Amino acid sequence: MSAAEREPQVVADRVDAAIHALADVVESGRRGWTRTALGPVDRDARAIVRRWMVEAGLQTSVDGAGNIFGLLPGTGSRGRSLMVGSHTDTVDGGGRFDGIVGVVGAIEAVHALRESNHRLEHDLVVVDFFNEEPNEFGLSCVGSRAMVGELNATHLDLTDTHGITLAQALRRIGIDASSALASRYDFSGVAAFLELHIEQGPYLEQHGSQIGLVESITGIARFQALFSGRADHAGTMPMDRRHDAGCAAAGTVLAVERIARQGRDSKGTCGQVTFTPEATNVVTEHAEFRGEFRGPEAQWLRTAQEALVSAAEAEGSTRGVTVEIDWLPTQDPAPMSASVLSTLSGVVDGLGLSSSRLFSGAEHDAAILARAVPAGLIFVPSQDGRSHCPEEWTDLPDIAAGVTTLTHALLALDRTASTIGATS
Amino acid sequence: MSAAEREPQVVADRVDAAIHALADVVESGRRGWTRTALGPVDRDARAIVRRWMVEAGLQTSVDGAGNIFGLLPGTGSRGRSLMVGSHTDTVDGGGRFDGIVGVVGAIEAVHALRESNHRLEHDLVVVDFFNEEPNEFGLSCVGSRAMVGELNATHLDLTDTHGITLAQALRRIGIDASSALASRYDFSGVAAFLELHIEQGPYLEQHGSQIGLVESITGIARFQALFSGRADHAGTMPMDRRHDAGCAAAGTVLAVERIARQGRDSKGTCGQVTFTPEATNVVTEHAEFRGEFRGPEAQWLRTAQEALVSAAEAEGSTRGVTVEIDWLPTQDPAPMSASVLSTLSGVVDGLGLSSSRLFSGAEHDAAILARAVPAGLIFVPSQDGRSHCPEEWTDLPDIAAGVTTLTHALLALDRTASTIGATS
Repeated sequence: MSAAEREPQVVADRVDAAIHALADVVESGRRGWTRTALGPVDRDARAIVRRWMVEAGLQTSVDGAGNIFGLLPGTGSRGRSLMVGSHTDTVDGGGRFDGIVGVVGAIEAVHALRESNHRLEHDLVVVDFFNEEPNEFGLSCVGSRAMVGELNATHLDLTDTHGITLAQALRRIGIDASSALASRYDFSGVAAFLELHIEQGPYLEQHGSQIGLVESITGIARFQALFSGRADHAGTMPMDRRHDAGCAAAGTVLAVERIARQGRDSKGTCGQVTFTPEATNVVTEHAEFRGEFRGPEAQWLRTAQEALVSAAEAEGSTRGVTVEIDWLPTQDPAPMSASVLSTLSGVVDGLGLSSSRLFSGAEHDAAILARAVPAGLIFVPSQDGRSHCPEEWTDLPDIAAGVTTLTHALLALDRTASTIGATS
Repeated sequence: MSAAEREPQVVADRVDAAIHALADVVESGRRGWTRTALGPVDRDARAIVRRWMVEAGLQTSVDGAGNIFGLLPGTGSRGRSLMVGSHTDTVDGGGRFDGIVGVVGAIEAVHALRESNHRLEHDLVVVDFFNEEPNEFGLSCVGSRAMVGELNATHLDLTDTHGITLAQALRRIGIDASSALASRYDFSGVAAFLELHIEQGPYLEQHGSQIGLVESITGIARFQALFSGRADHAGTMPMDRRHDAGCAAAGTVLAVERIARQGRDSKGTCGQVTFTPEATNVVTEHAEFRGEFRGPEAQWLRTAQEALVSAAEAEGSTRGVTVEIDWLPTQDPAPMSASVLSTLSGVVDGLGLSSSRLFSGAEHDAAILARAVPAGLIFVPSQDGRSHCPEEWTDLPDIAAGVTTLTHALLALDRTASTIGATS
């Protein structure tokens, strides 16, 4: 016999305390708030998240890919569920909000629903997705990829700059590679997925909107570029007889920047650069780096990929340096579910919050989940558009507005979700 | 009463065995034959060298800067000496001959002199100079700099990419920084210094010469370049609002190549590149690398330095990235002693060996010693000009010809050295 339903009330202080608690679990000696998924402290943070799920009354479990689930059984008998979540890992030198707001917010939504005596017909599944941020193997969204069946053996064979494979790195933190591959989630009963996230860009702030409703998530093409030249004495080998892999790599880094400047809303970024040998009196024999292009148009991504290969080959051939560009599978731009978006619009309007529809240049677990289930993505503003840096900041009232939106969206979807699968 | 003097005979097999013995003392898991001065195995190798000195009848000692000395007392009473030596450390991924041939060759010269019943009037001092190759702090010729009084506290405060100082790194391998600073050698009694070395370039091979007589050693200007931009999310921060330190660094790497291509016999090389954070979904906040220019003309080096600073500032300013270029003290081109060169010419002609006079694009301890003492540098050919790489090779008969030249040069200098100081 449940008590009478009240308006759900999000407790901002509880959200704030949880965000700060996770900000204390970071890798020592690193900049910002660093908690990489394959690093030494992510497991500790995730144990805390699981405990919070239990405290919120959720039945928790962890799959073979490291995703943490918290189940709130519904009152219905249809075996249908709503899923909500985000991630708690960070980039190296990252901030306190990226991903974390979505996990803490989902748990807060459960508190708010329970404290206001709301019981959903649908099962509610809260997820803390494992390793959303690109890891040192160049792979992102490891947990959500596993859930939709897109994690494969090729991914697990990816190597870092020390020659370690992703499978070996996962094993070190207690995740068995074959179990990860077998962690496909049965989405047949999932009516919709919702993710709350900070925008990580300046759009909402510039437009004075409290809430962003994402129409589509960026496509991404990630690569590893390898340049092989010849090690020679830097004092004796004439410039015109060198095979300097480092110069070919530097030219290609600039090509990424140049190509990305030519697209609409497109971005190109490089990192994880290594020149070997590690000396200035030897001509660089091997150089490598990783990079990525992002953009809202699948066709532009393909054009950028071709342009990069041409540029890298030109940089290599003028120096007698061989070039290898290895592309990870391209992630096409991911439209969010029109039905979910419509439901979210109604919720935001009903709450009297200002909102904008926008494109997400950041990738999200929602982009992966969208391949298996109608998905929606709710943004809250990022101060000065900063993210993936220690300065990343979202004001608590903005976060609370996002959690309130999420909570009411779950109620709305609970009422309407039986029709979403058909129309999304 | 010594037996009758004979023609000194260099034992090539003994030289070969010593080179191979040092090739066994290398850092495990690294490419080529790596024995960096600050690494884990250089001390072991130098202990072997010291034992070889003892076996050759030399009285050994080590100074506070890690230089190993082997003294063969002369018959004269003038307190004058001849010095001969090179180094046994290698670059990362280096070969088996660079430096090693000069130390092993000097010890072999002592054997050859003793076995042929030659006693020099001058004391003979064989030196294995500590850390000739540029270390991870960007400093080369640490031991010989200390001997001529040019090692200073600023050098010891240089930091590697982990923030460790050179003084700390030296302490780890048992060298006390203040002792190193106090290791100035008294060169007042040294009549001449000789170094035997592989050419490390293609000149002798191209000209069919067995022996190279070096007229001058390259000038070198080394720098560390630091670029500071802003970390931002790589998916959301528009290209035209970025402060990408990595792109500014890449542009500057290309500037080094471009500038060096414009000089005569000049070279420009970069290495030890780091972009942070170590990720492709964050715009690079900090980038750094080390680089160097080399050339035979002091004026060109200064022009190159100015051109690089301008280029780096241009790369930075178009991206809102701050740039800092820190130059190590420039090493001016070092002429070898005309008197020693003349003596060496006579020796080579007397032995019937083919020779060329040439410029050394590689730096050597002889360039440092030349500031304190008349110095000569003898080259033997490098196959295909390769060096600072595993493929580095010099045929044993070529090495033996070099050691024979060195041995006879010591005899010749022993006879003429009293006049060298005045004319060099």
